[in-house]
Amino acid sequence: MYDLDDQGGEICSLRFDLTVPFARWLAMTNTTQIKRYQIAKVYRRDQPAISRGRLREFYQCDFDIAGLYDPMIADAEILRVIVEVFEALQLEITIKLNHRRILDGLFAVAGVPNEKMRLISSAVDKLDKITWADVKKEMVQEKGLLNEVADQIGEYVRHSGDICEMLQFLKSDPRLSANEDVKAGLDDMDLLVSYLEALDVINKVSFDLSLARGLDYYSGLIFEVITKAPSRDGVVVPDKEGMPSPEQRAKSENQSSEVGSIAAGGRYDSLVGMYGKRPIPCVGVSFGVDRIFTILEARREKRPSLLTHEVDVYVMAFGGKDFDGLLLERMALARQLWNAGIRAEFAAKVKPKLQQQFKAAKDLPLAVIFGQDEVAAGQVRLKILEAGDDETDAKGRGQLVSREDLVEEVKKLLKTTVYT
Amino acid sequence: MYDLDDQGGEICSLRFDLTVPFARWLAMTNTTQIKRYQIAKVYRRDQPAISRGRLREFYQCDFDIAGLYDPMIADAEILRVIVEVFEALQLEITIKLNHRRILDGLFAVAGVPNEKMRLISSAVDKLDKITWADVKKEMVQEKGLLNEVADQIGEYVRHSGDICEMLQFLKSDPRLSANEDVKAGLDDMDLLVSYLEALDVINKVSFDLSLARGLDYYSGLIFEVITKAPSRDGVVVPDKEGMPSPEQRAKSENQSSEVGSIAAGGRYDSLVGMYGKRPIPCVGVSFGVDRIFTILEARREKRPSLLTHEVDVYVMAFGGKDFDGLLLERMALARQLWNAGIRAEFAAKVKPKLQQQFKAAKDLPLAVIFGQDEVAAGQVRLKILEAGDDETDAKGRGQLVSREDLVEEVKKLLKTTVYT
Repeated sequence: MYDLDDQGGEICSLRFDLTVPFARWLAMTNTTQIKRYQIAKVYRRDQPAISRGRLREFYQCDFDIAGLYDPMIADAEILRVIVEVFEALQLEITIKLNHRRILDGLFAVAGVPNEKMRLISSAVDKLDKITWADVKKEMVQEKGLLNEVADQIGEYVRHSGDICEMLQFLKSDPRLSANEDVKAGLDDMDLLVSYLEALDVINKVSFDLSLARGLDYYSGLIFEVITKAPSRDGVVVPDKEGMPSPEQRAKSENQSSEVGSIAAGGRYDSLVGMYGKRPIPCVGVSFGVDRIFTILEARREKRPSLLTHEVDVYVMAFGGKDFDGLLLERMALARQLWNAGIRAEFAAKVKPKLQQQFKAAKDLPLAVIFGQDEVAAGQVRLKILEAGDDETDAKGRGQLVSREDLVEEVKKLLKTTVYT
Repeated sequence: MYDLDDQGGEICSLRFDLTVPFARWLAMTNTTQIKRYQIAKVYRRDQPAISRGRLREFYQCDFDIAGLYDPMIADAEILRVIVEVFEALQLEITIKLNHRRILDGLFAVAGVPNEKMRLISSAVDKLDKITWADVKKEMVQEKGLLNEVADQIGEYVRHSGDICEMLQFLKSDPRLSANEDVKAGLDDMDLLVSYLEALDVINKVSFDLSLARGLDYYSGLIFEVITKAPSRDGVVVPDKEGMPSPEQRAKSENQSSEVGSIAAGGRYDSLVGMYGKRPIPCVGVSFGVDRIFTILEARREKRPSLLTHEVDVYVMAFGGKDFDGLLLERMALARQLWNAGIRAEFAAKVKPKLQQQFKAAKDLPLAVIFGQDEVAAGQVRLKILEAGDDETDAKGRGQLVSREDLVEEVKKLLKTTVYT
């Protein structure tokens, strides 16, 4: 987190996410039910990696549903919103799901002591980036877990795949299904499956027991969105040695795509209560705007755009030996075009050389050219600029147009020449 | 300024404005000429005043022209941009102008010691908020200026008004016009007048010798935009006692409108050079986005807007004693409407009471209502909601529509009922 210096006021930090400020706002107001979105910057003291869209200052877009409703209905709506967002962006996604209470129960059954739950949880969360062997090493050597307990966890958390098959797998394990936390989580997930079917997003989710989400405040469903077609392989089972098979490794590397997860969230029922008297159950998602833009940007077809012309018309003047630059006339002409909404520019010099002006106008579609004679006659020369145009023989170039007709003629030319 | 805590990295602050970061960027890159705009947040450790749009975290919109051009051409373009912006927003403005070198010369002529220039400058800058008597008191008692010097300053800085008359006034004072700084500033202002005439914005400016702008980096033209019709009174002359006349006081109070200045800027030719090897002359303006929004918001007609309906259709179900809530059917129906881009909602309860559903739908235009019979027949009831609608006799209400025709019928009703 970035903390502000104590300058004799309140001790503040730059916000780390939009979830905690939202929870604090709920606790401070009388709001009991709300659906809201917010797009804003958050700040993290991380190592930045610009190519992967990982920045210290970045935008999140959050959508949350706060309030007491019947179980899993709001959760399902959040998942539907996620699917709609990425459909609109034409990005293929999978939403990896897990449930905090299933994970807690599973750790308890495996024999993780209560005080090590969160430590182990964050180790497991790295399974999409490092191998099981490394995760196990961290759990046993750094976090002091017994070898057998780690192996037992490994048996469970490397399962992922089709949600219905995964639920079946969990229910079929007598030790797991006897655990109260796991049971409560399974009830939630059963409900969720029926709702996701009704909302037609069931084919976008997979169940991943290794998904843990680092943050403490999640209390129920958790999820992470990755850019990948959904797995249709059913449950992935580890091989005999408990090491990931080469296929699993490949799968894992594929999953941890270049930018990592592009949206994530979950249910946080106790967070609001920490900041006020009333607990308000919430569920929400944060979209990683910069990561999503990184992907969209990479996909975007690089084609010449109208916006590459930031200016439509270059206003230039020329003259003989006693040429004074006609600056005020060039300004007045630009003003006339600006007033009509036409993007025009002129050289910010009192006496610019014609050569310089043609150079500055090189990539623009049109030029308005005049000398003292044209000014006197209330006329200008309007020229479609072409490659190779230069200062030679400027006088004879272009179409003579009266000042009154200029705007109309420019608009006509811009329509036919540029905007087609 | 808000400083970040030293957490073992670089010492940073939250940006105070967009000008200094722009200057640093220019110094770091090879850019020598650029026109650019930027909209972003800045942070100030001020006392906030929300009703006047004065916040600690607020948006600025900057437009700057960097590069070496002939004098005052870019300055004039900046002023033209300001006028265009506020014309687009339909806000009547005056741009108060002054010139740093005229001000410096004027202080020197009045007898201000060099080391007190900036102190006196910032005292004078308060003349739009407090009386001359208070400004003088600050200069003499707090800043140790001689009484006669303060009086001499007062003679000058309380002049403001029509730019041509003001230039005439300055030129007619032999002591001022003999000063090199004043002379250079007057040359700039003469050029500016001709350019502002050519760009047709001369009638939007006034010359205010009390405008000083606090920031050190301004080196030439400075300006501040206020929401007020331009003064047509010519030069305002202080009365005999050197105290502002009641009219002047009233004028001053009127000028410092509720939100203060809504845009400001100036020329800063030395700032880029402070951060790199190459000096790049710049001129730019910062628009106070939040202050401008405060004014626009106050002006905005409060009329019922389509956006007050955040949802178009409420999906509700009813039934007899064995009513199971039809949640999955309500979800599937909402999904059908969502897929067609229609904003729909349903109660997030397994078995909601019909009364609750009507209450939730109270301010919405349409309801889709169904019971088990309608589900079986592949139909729903589509109802235009009216004041006084309630749960009684829900069955008979609305128009029976088949599921296939629902989207089309809803769109038709929304068009005729709501969007006209």
